[in-house]
Amino acid sequence: MADKINPVHETSDEALGLAAKLLGETKYASLAVNEADTHFPLVSRVAACFSQDTGVFFAASDLSVHSKCLTTDPKCSMMLGEPGKGDGLAYARMTLVAKVERMPNDHERRAQFRDVFLKTHPKAELYIDFGDFGFYPLALQRILLNGGFGKAFHLSAEDLKTLFDDFETYKKRAD
Amino acid sequence: MADKINPVHETSDEALGLAAKLLGETKYASLAVNEADTHFPLVSRVAACFSQDTGVFFAASDLSVHSKCLTTDPKCSMMLGEPGKGDGLAYARMTLVAKVERMPNDHERRAQFRDVFLKTHPKAELYIDFGDFGFYPLALQRILLNGGFGKAFHLSAEDLKTLFDDFETYKKRAD
Repeated sequence: MADKINPVHETSDEALGLAAKLLGETKYASLAVNEADTHFPLVSRVAACFSQDTGVFFAASDLSVHSKCLTTDPKCSMMLGEPGKGDGLAYARMTLVAKVERMPNDHERRAQFRDVFLKTHPKAELYIDFGDFGFYPLALQRILLNGGFGKAFHLSAEDLKTLFDDFETYKKRAD
Repeated sequence: MADKINPVHETSDEALGLAAKLLGETKYASLAVNEADTHFPLVSRVAACFSQDTGVFFAASDLSVHSKCLTTDPKCSMMLGEPGKGDGLAYARMTLVAKVERMPNDHERRAQFRDVFLKTHPKAELYIDFGDFGFYPLALQRILLNGGFGKAFHLSAEDLKTLFDDFETYKKRAD
């Protein structure tokens, strides 16, 4: 139960449904990483995607600032859920807390990730096979979900297991 | 000059114009902070605004995760510039690297910040005077600007001085 001191609600089926919906809509995201020398948290926009088989991942060039940061510290978070018109804080969004590292380009599952990525980002075919581009699959730890005013939830590793064990049911729930 | 190894261009008048434009449009932003115990960088959405007198600042409740993180580490970054339809990476955005702390509610300049904030977020009148809400003015150090493919710039403290000394000129340049 949320209250004035702790505004976070207990995870409900509604919260899991909303998380499934936001995951299914993954396209662009705000990625936060740690800058090695300064320890500043840096946020930037990345092209991302999701499937049940691959989980959430993003693509990035080795030349980008965030990729360089991730070579020294795999800790990141990624916010999904873009605001629409009007009050931007009324739109649902969630922060995936995860560790992430670049999948080697010769990884046996690369072709599968490539297919999933191009389904969401067809124009990426122009650059995705360049040697400096790689896929970054998130090893999810927990999710901070904000469904709008008064709708904060913290999804634990256990909640995430529940969600992924029955993903389609939760996703349909929110449609 | 940008090249394959260092894709960052030297700061130009065009870059300063774009930075002025994005600052002037500040409304919602992705804020990254450091989580105290885990050292994960956490990103969330905040309501923000900008004026030449106040600089960039955001409003947040003491109950929010990001506010709690900032009480132990003032280092943050904030991404401005929302994507529109189509290719989200084609839209300009920039990351403000800054230190930030909560302005005390009895600060003599609070009324000025309140006016600026309500001009951008009129509906915030409903909650902005609650005791747990505060303003967080960014002490800017540098800006990582991404104007779209092949348009990366890093604005130094010196570049920012140039920008703010002649803000209106740069802003008009980009209109």
